[in-house]
Amino acid sequence: MAQSVHRENKPMSDLPKRVFIKEEGPREGFQIERQPIPTERKIALVDALSDTGLDYIQVTSFVHPGKVPGMADAEAVVAGMTPREGVRYAGLWLNQQGLIRAIATGRLYLEGKLTLYASDAFLRRNQNRDPQQQLAAQPELIKMYQAHGIPMRTGFVTAAFGCNFEGDVAPEKVVALVGQMRSIARDAGEDLSLIGLGDTMGWATPERIRRVVGMVQDANPDVELSLHLHDTRGLGIANAYAGLQMGVQHFDAAVGGLGGCPFAAHAGAAGNICTEDFVLLCEEMGIETGVDLEKLSECAVLAEEIVGHPLPGKVKTGGSLSALRRRISGE
Amino acid sequence: MAQSVHRENKPMSDLPKRVFIKEEGPREGFQIERQPIPTERKIALVDALSDTGLDYIQVTSFVHPGKVPGMADAEAVVAGMTPREGVRYAGLWLNQQGLIRAIATGRLYLEGKLTLYASDAFLRRNQNRDPQQQLAAQPELIKMYQAHGIPMRTGFVTAAFGCNFEGDVAPEKVVALVGQMRSIARDAGEDLSLIGLGDTMGWATPERIRRVVGMVQDANPDVELSLHLHDTRGLGIANAYAGLQMGVQHFDAAVGGLGGCPFAAHAGAAGNICTEDFVLLCEEMGIETGVDLEKLSECAVLAEEIVGHPLPGKVKTGGSLSALRRRISGE
Repeated sequence: MAQSVHRENKPMSDLPKRVFIKEEGPREGFQIERQPIPTERKIALVDALSDTGLDYIQVTSFVHPGKVPGMADAEAVVAGMTPREGVRYAGLWLNQQGLIRAIATGRLYLEGKLTLYASDAFLRRNQNRDPQQQLAAQPELIKMYQAHGIPMRTGFVTAAFGCNFEGDVAPEKVVALVGQMRSIARDAGEDLSLIGLGDTMGWATPERIRRVVGMVQDANPDVELSLHLHDTRGLGIANAYAGLQMGVQHFDAAVGGLGGCPFAAHAGAAGNICTEDFVLLCEEMGIETGVDLEKLSECAVLAEEIVGHPLPGKVKTGGSLSALRRRISGE
Repeated sequence: MAQSVHRENKPMSDLPKRVFIKEEGPREGFQIERQPIPTERKIALVDALSDTGLDYIQVTSFVHPGKVPGMADAEAVVAGMTPREGVRYAGLWLNQQGLIRAIATGRLYLEGKLTLYASDAFLRRNQNRDPQQQLAAQPELIKMYQAHGIPMRTGFVTAAFGCNFEGDVAPEKVVALVGQMRSIARDAGEDLSLIGLGDTMGWATPERIRRVVGMVQDANPDVELSLHLHDTRGLGIANAYAGLQMGVQHFDAAVGGLGGCPFAAHAGAAGNICTEDFVLLCEEMGIETGVDLEKLSECAVLAEEIVGHPLPGKVKTGGSLSALRRRISGE
């Protein structure tokens, strides 16, 4: 604990030099839309995103078409896109059936992932499991990935900062879950070297980010951290900044601020942090993203056209500062 | 400089215990709306805001009715509101004529303020003055306030973090302007004890906030600081968080995220940071605001009804965490 307090108070010099963004807009975003989105429009967005410098794009979700009709065209989206060299295209699945569909496309970057819920109430509600059952189910999952030859790297904690059904989540619980998940993986010969913390229902605040990230880092100095943040209460970018201050290098984001989680069952579900607003934040602090902000802003405008309603991202209307600087200097 | 570097790296323990919010929604917000807002609706919002615990509300602008027709009813708004004890109701004016109108209402909290532009290009554009003329005009202004018996406390720097017409603004320039303005005030027997830094066109980033605030603090250890932030590029709340980390205690904000500056002449002008999102940020970090977040969220909903289009604030739809905690614990 004393060490984690130290970490919380550490200076700002831990800002990373480079961040790695996983673009989740096409998956997170289109999933929640009420109007069906034509497959070719989804493909158009994926292809446009491929041209921005983003090198990790989650393009679709292999979930039950009856449960998420908007994702019934998962295979068609993957088949229709024009992959660009150096870009990893990913999909989401929730079970072996989904994984097999993803494998069958032959075009996706596949990686196995363990996910633990930090909220018992949300776990019960969403998975109808208790914490013991949750842990007991993981070795089976690892076996599934190993059987399919899928490498594993990531352990993810859902509702790591709080939960609409359970309230605040103790940072100690998150640290314990990360330890258990890494230990289960190790027992099966796998190393989880990237730990993702998900603010599934928008409970994170910058100080909570600093505390939880600091404690997870202290207990796991050998892993990299990733943040999956939602902007439910307007703190998304501030939370990302707090993560950057703690040296976090991996962030999920959604172009335009697309999305929201239809399963978290709360009013006002908001999307992931907006990719282009986050890129501007990084760019202006001298943190490399590998992304062309102007091209990405154009993607946000395209995403807005596709969904047919305003998206919350600001840079697509406010403009980037680098573009303003170029205009001012007459370039 | 060495000292300011030290400040930038100082630990998080400088979070203030209490912040003071100046609500600017009714003024900043209604000023920019294209549709005329009925006077009684403006009054309804001011009265609702009076009941939230906010103790400083800028209700209107005494500007030329021909230039800002939406503010032609300034006197009627002030006459129609029901002042609540302990709440300071303020107005904005740009010249003696406006000040005299504000005084004539007999109901406003009046304080004199000096304002300097940190961007020469914006100064020329907006005021048709050069930096020397700007400085030369200040003593006259102080005399005007003194002649009317109006106390002076605030010195404000416009475009303190950058400008759409000039680009980046050097922090050293801001520090110099603050020094000049305090010196001019001192020569006239006034003490500027509150220094406001305005991010008029949304050029601030959290790191820039830390740098400029740190340097101004170092050069002026005897003043309190105030931040006036716009959310033009989605960094507003992150910038406020950076200000809190530096110990800043005074913030301007607009309920619902109302507003935007019609004179900054840039596409996508966004409003001030959203008051209720900022209050949630503070509340969740244990910083007292004196504001009832639930009542304030209702004001944001009312503001949205009044302007007739979605406002960017998130808490009004996402809900507060304290309300969720109460619901979970069955209170």
